Amino acid sequence: MKKLINAVDDVVKEQLEGMAVAHPDMLKINFEPKYVYRADAPIAGKVALISGGGSGHEPMHGGFVGMGMLAGACPGEVFTSPTPDQMYECAKAVDGGAGVLFLVKNYTGDVLNFETAAELAYADGIKVQNILIDDDVAVKDSLYTAGRRGVGTTVLCEKIVGAAAEAGYDLDQCSDLARKVNMYGRSMGMALTSCTVPAAGKPTFELGEDEMEIGIGIHGEPGQKRMAMTSVDEITTLMTNEILDDGPYSRTVREWDNESGTWVEKDIVDQPFQAGDEVIVFVNSMGGTPVSELYAVYRKVAEICADRGVKIVRNLIGPYITSLEMQGCSITLLKADEEILKFWDAPVNTPGLRWGV
Amino acid sequence: MKKLINAVDDVVKEQLEGMAVAHPDMLKINFEPKYVYRADAPIAGKVALISGGGSGHEPMHGGFVGMGMLAGACPGEVFTSPTPDQMYECAKAVDGGAGVLFLVKNYTGDVLNFETAAELAYADGIKVQNILIDDDVAVKDSLYTAGRRGVGTTVLCEKIVGAAAEAGYDLDQCSDLARKVNMYGRSMGMALTSCTVPAAGKPTFELGEDEMEIGIGIHGEPGQKRMAMTSVDEITTLMTNEILDDGPYSRTVREWDNESGTWVEKDIVDQPFQAGDEVIVFVNSMGGTPVSELYAVYRKVAEICADRGVKIVRNLIGPYITSLEMQGCSITLLKADEEILKFWDAPVNTPGLRWGV
Repeated sequence: MKKLINAVDDVVKEQLEGMAVAHPDMLKINFEPKYVYRADAPIAGKVALISGGGSGHEPMHGGFVGMGMLAGACPGEVFTSPTPDQMYECAKAVDGGAGVLFLVKNYTGDVLNFETAAELAYADGIKVQNILIDDDVAVKDSLYTAGRRGVGTTVLCEKIVGAAAEAGYDLDQCSDLARKVNMYGRSMGMALTSCTVPAAGKPTFELGEDEMEIGIGIHGEPGQKRMAMTSVDEITTLMTNEILDDGPYSRTVREWDNESGTWVEKDIVDQPFQAGDEVIVFVNSMGGTPVSELYAVYRKVAEICADRGVKIVRNLIGPYITSLEMQGCSITLLKADEEILKFWDAPVNTPGLRWGV
Repeated sequence: MKKLINAVDDVVKEQLEGMAVAHPDMLKINFEPKYVYRADAPIAGKVALISGGGSGHEPMHGGFVGMGMLAGACPGEVFTSPTPDQMYECAKAVDGGAGVLFLVKNYTGDVLNFETAAELAYADGIKVQNILIDDDVAVKDSLYTAGRRGVGTTVLCEKIVGAAAEAGYDLDQCSDLARKVNMYGRSMGMALTSCTVPAAGKPTFELGEDEMEIGIGIHGEPGQKRMAMTSVDEITTLMTNEILDDGPYSRTVREWDNESGTWVEKDIVDQPFQAGDEVIVFVNSMGGTPVSELYAVYRKVAEICADRGVKIVRNLIGPYITSLEMQGCSITLLKADEEILKFWDAPVNTPGLRWGV
């Protein structure tokens, strides 16, 4: 294993130290327990958006802390869920009285720990809500998940709902918007190579010299299938069609009821994409794939969308939700309405995403 | 070789097609010959900044075309100099009457071709100037270079001089500023892995499982030495000290005299860094190294600068001048004065760098 690290046990801590010293204008970092939070938090009267998950997906989530995006982020060890105390302490640090919205990627550990954190924060008098991101069309149930995994839509949701919180949306409005973004977003990923978790010291999986994995998860979890390597046009066509052809997806999620102080179940159904839809397209590098290759992917996504009458109105192209140094990419399509576009275009000032400031 | 490409011969063309369809608000692309140029070019009365070089270093240079940065960029094939006709046609497309400044990284092919292009453009009545970037302290003379190679300072120079051109600096003022930025900037790189040029189909060089190359060039040219792998703190210390301890560097450059229509030689000496200097620190990924590891590098650079009384006033951390999917990093320090900081902070709107817009 060759990485730019010191001792394996210090990887996350030292990377966070580097972030703290690099971006004191945007964020601060607490180390026991670990959480990243806005330099100007808490902000009175504004909803505080918090996400988190295992490290190794940078710049998500810590790199999205700042004006117009996350109020806080809770990093676990590499590919490991953060703990409820991180989320709870972070919530206390950033709550400005308008409540805390936890954006939770659908991995079993993350879901359980964010639920515990929400209960702890609620017991302290903080209004809370948990919204699930489960946008990966590749697999139903997987190594760490019941239901679909949460992947690329998370980045778009953090940007859009972060802007809404900045604009003064209350907790219910932010929650409704986050749920809508998740329902409007669908993703799929693929890998050319594995990655190596520092604590493991060896690649998470093996791929042959002429093999790729379609439908891979962001922790290297198995995808749909291994295939012989083919052209970027074929790979992109396969993934984009899978996203565009995905039928209605039904599931039951648990959300918090701040009136009764209990979890309530809610049935949700995604609507498939249709000709005439406007979409934000997000082409993401898994980390080791250079941006030049992402443009070849985008080229084909744009062609397919044009053929199918789906109009791309915004795009994001680069490494934003990664899997360490894994080579590969993911594609996310998000149906965009007026509300979503307004908040997508709003200013953002974070280490990982910045415009309008 | 596993890459997200179609036919090897089409790699650059198709990636450019992807850029064109992704960013029509910022840039346009001409394909015969190939150049990327601002969507709103030519801009009457403003100096047009052009750079270029082999592809494979994305987002540099095409990804830096847009408001506040480059007016045009000329991409060669991967790791291959662009041709004079690309540069000449690009100059004609973007010249708004105030002249064209070619920013040239010091590689023999680039230098010769940009000189030919300058002569052609001048013969057409366009005021021209060529400013060399040669900031790599690792080696004096190398595989493709007489003198030092041009690396990370190029990115900073494109940002700073692009903002100056936007603000109305004339050709001489832009040239003086570009020369100053080059003299104030020093860089060094290292690699953990090789990269694979598509047309070659195999890694440019081989590195052992526990080896790294210090002082590597952005085309995988040999550096100072191969060493056993060590910690990020040791690697960063070695490179940062080499940059900070570098003595005065003298060389003779050729610049164009628009009065006489001839090349004139000019002696230039870089001044070493001193305690009390303010600097912009740029920690760059060679492509395959994730941003999380760059923060560990930045953490140590910041510590060393603090120890030596060098004050970091701005930073840039991410993959901006890459070598395809190579793993590794480079460090650039740029002495910053008031003029440089003013233009660093100015708005920029390009696919690769964006703020204030």
